[in-house]
Formats: sequence, structure tokens, C-alpha cells
Amino acid sequence: MPKPKSDSRNKIVGAARTLLRRQGYHATGLAQIVERSGAPRGSVYFLFPGGKEEVAVAAVEEWTVDVDALLRRLRAASPDAPRWITAIADHFAGELQASGFVEGLPVTTIVLDSVPGSAALSDVCRRAYDTWLATLVDGLIGYGVPADRAGPLATLLLASLEGGAVVCRAYGSTEPLDRIVPQVLGLLPVD
Amino acid sequence: MPKPKSDSRNKIVGAARTLLRRQGYHATGLAQIVERSGAPRGSVYFLFPGGKEEVAVAAVEEWTVDVDALLRRLRAASPDAPRWITAIADHFAGELQASGFVEGLPVTTIVLDSVPGSAALSDVCRRAYDTWLATLVDGLIGYGVPADRAGPLATLLLASLEGGAVVCRAYGSTEPLDRIVPQVLGLLPVD
Repeated sequence: MPKPKSDSRNKIVGAARTLLRRQGYHATGLAQIVERSGAPRGSVYFLFPGGKEEVAVAAVEEWTVDVDALLRRLRAASPDAPRWITAIADHFAGELQASGFVEGLPVTTIVLDSVPGSAALSDVCRRAYDTWLATLVDGLIGYGVPADRAGPLATLLLASLEGGAVVCRAYGSTEPLDRIVPQVLGLLPVD
Repeated sequence: MPKPKSDSRNKIVGAARTLLRRQGYHATGLAQIVERSGAPRGSVYFLFPGGKEEVAVAAVEEWTVDVDALLRRLRAASPDAPRWITAIADHFAGELQASGFVEGLPVTTIVLDSVPGSAALSDVCRRAYDTWLATLVDGLIGYGVPADRAGPLATLLLASLEGGAVVCRAYGSTEPLDRIVPQVLGLLPVD
């Protein structure tokens, strides 16, 4: 009967995702994660013997899968590259807005305060970027962008969304992202 | 004879700039700043009665001025917009490399772990972006970019440099920035 254990795990990683995304690794304490999660206090030591670092690795692994699934879902719903890119940016603009401008792209905060300091977090953050960039490249190629243009364009898209979300946080407004998207669209090859 | 006091202030803010840029506000303790600075331990309480937040505000104010001066200096040395943008990106790529990929764009780490939590830091980080964006817009217009294109292009440039530096940190390589720059140059109007 593993359900209670699994529920606690989900709750802990879910709470960690919110806190880590908002305030980074260093500002987030294990006790704060457990408190927010509502899981039994003792369960975290049993489920994550590696402590906060192990919880953060699990959070990044979930983000990796979830953002990848999001990119694929939006791709399936978008008839062309401009609408796909716009839908991706709209999604993150919506999350910024809904969170009161404290939730930018996941992983960013952890890269900035824990990479390369933590080998485990460095590794899992690189894998997150690898995964998302590969899906962006595949998607762009699928929409007809030449293979040699798709790689650099995917990197620009990821970087400008990530940096754009930082600037949006500072201004408490999605306007920076709104200004960025048409620029990125301007780089797509014209049919 | 105000020199010793001023020296201590410079040392403390200099140490804060390095630590805050590398690891953010939360991971950086006032004691760590003072230790790195080599300034007398007591001087920090005298010079910065507002504590760590006041030191961080001073650090962001210095970055604001220094990055702005850098942008203007590189502009004076660049005959056209592509060479200016390339020189800016090369500068930050050089700082990433020289620091072992722990120093991305200044301010980013503070925005991510302290905005909007700290009103003083939120305010000073917005002023930093305002200053840099205005200088980027002026520069682009000076190179002949139409005024209605210069604003969005400056926002994309800032966001993609900032996000690009985050991705570079994760990979321990300047390659992401190298891929981004030609994309941004592709958006400049052709003479």
C-alpha cells in the first residue's frame, strides 16, 4: 500500500517547485518546504535522505518533464510556428501574472544560485535545457524551419523567454515579453 | 580626512557586487561580504546602518552606472550596430568565462530572489533596467534603427543577453551566447 508515501512525495516536490521557482535554492529551507506541503514532517527524511538537494533535483526533474509536455501540447494545437511561439510566451506570461510576478521560467533561479556549486543540480538543470531545446528544435523543423536555423533560433527563443521573464518580474508587467515575441517571430523564415 | 571611510565603503560594495552577482541576495551574508572586503568589521554597521539590503542597493546602483558606461564606451568604439551588439555580448561572454561561469549579467540574481520581496531592491533593479534600456534604445537609434523598432529590439537584446548568460552558466560554455548574437543581428534593418 504505497499510496500515502507517494502522496507525501508529490506534496513535498510540489511545494518545493513553488518555493524554488519563486525564491531560489538558498532562500528555501527544507522545513519551509515540508510546512507548505502539509506532508508529515518525518516523511521528508525518509523519502529524501539526501535532504534539500535531493528534493530540488526531483523538482527540476518534474519541471523538465512538465515543460516538455507543455511545449509538445502547445505544438499539437498550433498550426504554424508563429502561433506556437506566441502560445509558449503567453503561457509563461500567464504564470507570471497569476503568481503576482514571482514565477518566471522554472530552473532559472536554481541555475543562478546553485550552478555550478551543486554537481547534482548542475547536471539536472543542464538536462532540463537539453530536453527543452531539443523539443523546440524538433518543433521548429516540423514547422518547416531549416535545420541549420532551428538550433540557433531555439536557443534565442529559450534565452529571450528566460531573460524576458526576469525583466517582467522586475517591472511587475508582462509588457517586456509582449515586446519580445514579435521580434522572435520576425526571425522565422517567410514561406 | 574621509579617505579611510570611503575606502572601506568601496571595498564593501565591491565585495558585495561579486558575491551578489554569483550567488544572489539570500545566499550572501553580511559577514561574508565584510570578510571578503577586508574592511574593518565594525565599519559596515557605521557605513550601512540599513544592513545587507542597503549594501545590496549600493551594489545595484554601482552596476547601473558601470554597465551604462560600458554600453556607451563600446558604442563610441563601434562603427555600426552589429559591431556594437557583438561587442556587448563579447564583454559578458568574457566575464562569464573569466569567472568560471558564475558571473552572468549583474542584477539578474537579485531580481530573482529579492523582487518584489524587497521594495528598495525592486526599485533600484527597475532603475537599472530603465537606464540600460534607454541607452540601448538611444544607441540603436543613433545607428539608424527606426525609433519604433529600437524599443522592442533593445528589450529583446537585454532579455536574450540576460537569459543567454543563465543558459551559459548551466552549460559552462559561452556557446549559447555565440548562437544568440547572429539571431539578434538578423533583426537589424538592412541599410
